[in-house]
Amino acid sequence: MRGWGVVVAQQFEIPLWVDLAATAAGAVQGAMFAAQFKDRRLDLLGVGIIGVVTGFGGGMLRDLLLNQVPAALQSNWYILVATGAALLGMLLQRLFSRINIAIVILDAVSLGLFCAIGVSKALSVGLPVVPSLFIGVVAAVGGGMLRDVLLGLPIGVMHVGSLYAVAAGVGALFLVGATASGADITVAGIGCVIVTTVIRLLAVRFGWSLPEQRAL
Amino acid sequence: MRGWGVVVAQQFEIPLWVDLAATAAGAVQGAMFAAQFKDRRLDLLGVGIIGVVTGFGGGMLRDLLLNQVPAALQSNWYILVATGAALLGMLLQRLFSRINIAIVILDAVSLGLFCAIGVSKALSVGLPVVPSLFIGVVAAVGGGMLRDVLLGLPIGVMHVGSLYAVAAGVGALFLVGATASGADITVAGIGCVIVTTVIRLLAVRFGWSLPEQRAL
Amino acid sequence: MRGWGVVVAQQFEIPLWVDLAATAAGAVQGAMFAAQFKDRRLDLLGVGIIGVVTGFGGGMLRDLLLNQVPAALQSNWYILVATGAALLGMLLQRLFSRINIAIVILDAVSLGLFCAIGVSKALSVGLPVVPSLFIGVVAAVGGGMLRDVLLGLPIGVMHVGSLYAVAAGVGALFLVGATASGADITVAGIGCVIVTTVIRLLAVRFGWSLPEQRAL
Repeated sequence: MRGWGVVVAQQFEIPLWVDLAATAAGAVQGAMFAAQFKDRRLDLLGVGIIGVVTGFGGGMLRDLLLNQVPAALQSNWYILVATGAALLGMLLQRLFSRINIAIVILDAVSLGLFCAIGVSKALSVGLPVVPSLFIGVVAAVGGGMLRDVLLGLPIGVMHVGSLYAVAAGVGALFLVGATASGADITVAGIGCVIVTTVIRLLAVRFGWSLPEQRAL
Repeated sequence: MRGWGVVVAQQFEIPLWVDLAATAAGAVQGAMFAAQFKDRRLDLLGVGIIGVVTGFGGGMLRDLLLNQVPAALQSNWYILVATGAALLGMLLQRLFSRINIAIVILDAVSLGLFCAIGVSKALSVGLPVVPSLFIGVVAAVGGGMLRDVLLGLPIGVMHVGSLYAVAAGVGALFLVGATASGADITVAGIGCVIVTTVIRLLAVRFGWSLPEQRAL
Repeated sequence: MRGWGVVVAQQFEIPLWVDLAATAAGAVQGAMFAAQFKDRRLDLLGVGIIGVVTGFGGGMLRDLLLNQVPAALQSNWYILVATGAALLGMLLQRLFSRINIAIVILDAVSLGLFCAIGVSKALSVGLPVVPSLFIGVVAAVGGGMLRDVLLGLPIGVMHVGSLYAVAAGVGALFLVGATASGADITVAGIGCVIVTTVIRLLAVRFGWSLPEQRAL
C-alpha cells in the first residue's frame, strides 16, 4: 500500500542569506500584524516571540514532523534575525506600512521558498507524495497558524480570505510533478517558488478565495 | 527508580482499512462539529484542516512524543481519507446528523482503537506503565483537543461533559492489566476497545460526568 | 557560519526528587491559576491536564525541540506527581493562597531549575549558544504558555507583566558565560538558578516589567 506515490528527490537548497531574508520577511510581517492589537498590551518579548514563530515556526513544525532537530536551532542566525526583524518591524511599522506592497511581495516569495524547501525535504527523507505536499504546505503556512494561536485569534488560513495555503499547495504540486518528470531539483524548486508567488499575488490583487463551508 | 511499572508488550496492530475507517469517523465528526460555527466563515481548507487534525491529530501527538515520524505521514492514505471524509461530512451533514447515533458509536470505537494502539505502541518502545497510559489517552483525545485549539473553543475534554478521556483511560488500564497478566496483545487490545467503547456509550446514554473543580 | 558561538557543556543534573519538587510546584501553581476561572466548568481531568502541562510542559517542549523522547515520559513519577499536586492544589487552594509567598518563591526556583537544565542540555547535545539560550527559556516558560493556550487565555509571558522569561534569559546567559569561562557545570547551573530566582523575585517585589510594544 505504501509503494505508490513515491518520488525520489534531493532537498532544494538555498543560500543561508536567502533563508534568513525569508525568515526576516516573515518576522517583520508578524510584528506588523501584532501591532494592530494595541489593546492587548503585548510587550517587547511578546513581539520577539511573534517574530520567531512567524519567521521560522513553519520550518520548526516541518522538522518536528520529520523527526529532526529544527534547522533553525542549528545555527545562531535564525533566532537573532527573527527577533531583530520583529523589533524593527514594530519600531518602523509606519515606514513598513508605506511600503506594504514590498512586504506582500517578499512574503509571497517567502511562502514559495518555505514550501519548496519543505516539500523537497520531505521527499528527500523518503515520505510519499501526499504527506510531502502536506509538509510543504505546513512549512509554508504553519508559522502564521502558530502566530494566530499565540495571539488568540481565529486562524487566518482556515477562514475565507485571499488564497495562501492553496498557493503553496499548487506550488508544491508543481515541484512534485517536475521532479517526477525528471527535472533537476533546482529547476523544480525555483518553479515552485514562482508558481506559489504568482498565485498568491494574483489572489491578493483579484481577491480570489475558497468557498465558505456549506452543506448540500 | 525507573525499574518499576514496566510491562513488556507488542504493538496492537490493526488492518490499514480499520485504521482508515477510524480516521474517517474522526474527520466526519470534526467537520460536523465545525459546521455548527457558521458565523466563523471557515472555508473548504479550514474544514479539511479540521478533518486532518480530528482524524489523526491524536496519532501525530503520540508519535511526536514517542520521537517517531508520524505513522499517518508514512502512507498517502491518511491525509486523502481524512480530507475526503471531512468534506463529505460537511456536504452531507444533514444526512449524517440523521444517523447521529451511528456516528457516536463509530466515534466511540475509534476512541478505543486509537487508545489501544497508543498505549501498546508506548509499551512496545519500552516506556513505563504510567506514561504509556498517558500516551494512550493523548492518542485517543488529542485530535479533539487540537481541533478545539484551532477553532478557538474551550477544550471539550477539560470541561464538565460526558466521559471521554476517562473511558480511554479505563480502557488503557485494562490493556496494561491484561498484558501484565500474560494476555496476548490482540486479546488485550480488543478488550481495551470494547471497554472504552462501552464506557463512552454508557456515559453518553446516562449523562455520566466527572465532578467540576472545587476547593475543600 | 555555524562555527561560532559553540560552548561545550555537560548537562546540569539534579536529583530526581528536586526535579519532582519543581514539577509539583508548577502543577500546584497551574491548578491554583485555573481555579480562578470557576465559570468555565473545568472538571477534575481538566485540572489534571493543567497540572501536567504546567508541571512539565516546558520540559516536553525542550525535548521535542531536541528530538528526544521527553524525560518526563521515561519514568512513572512525573505524571503521578504532577496530577497529584494539581488535585491537591485545587482542593487546598485556600491553604495555598495563604502561603502564596512560599509558592511564588518555589515557582521562581523552579523557573531557574528548568532554565539551567534546558540550556545545559541544549549545549550538551551540541547546539550553538543562541538556540541553547532559546531552549532554556522555552523549558522555563513553555509550560505556562501551554497552560494559557489550553485555557484559551492571553499568553502571560507575551504581555506586560512582571519579568518571567527575561529572568530565565539572564540566568541562561549567566550559565553560558560561566561555562565558556571554564566553570564547572554544577557551579554554573546553581549560579543560573540563583540569578533567575533573584531577578524573578525582585521583579515581583518591585513590579519590574518590559516596555509595551510601540512604534517610532
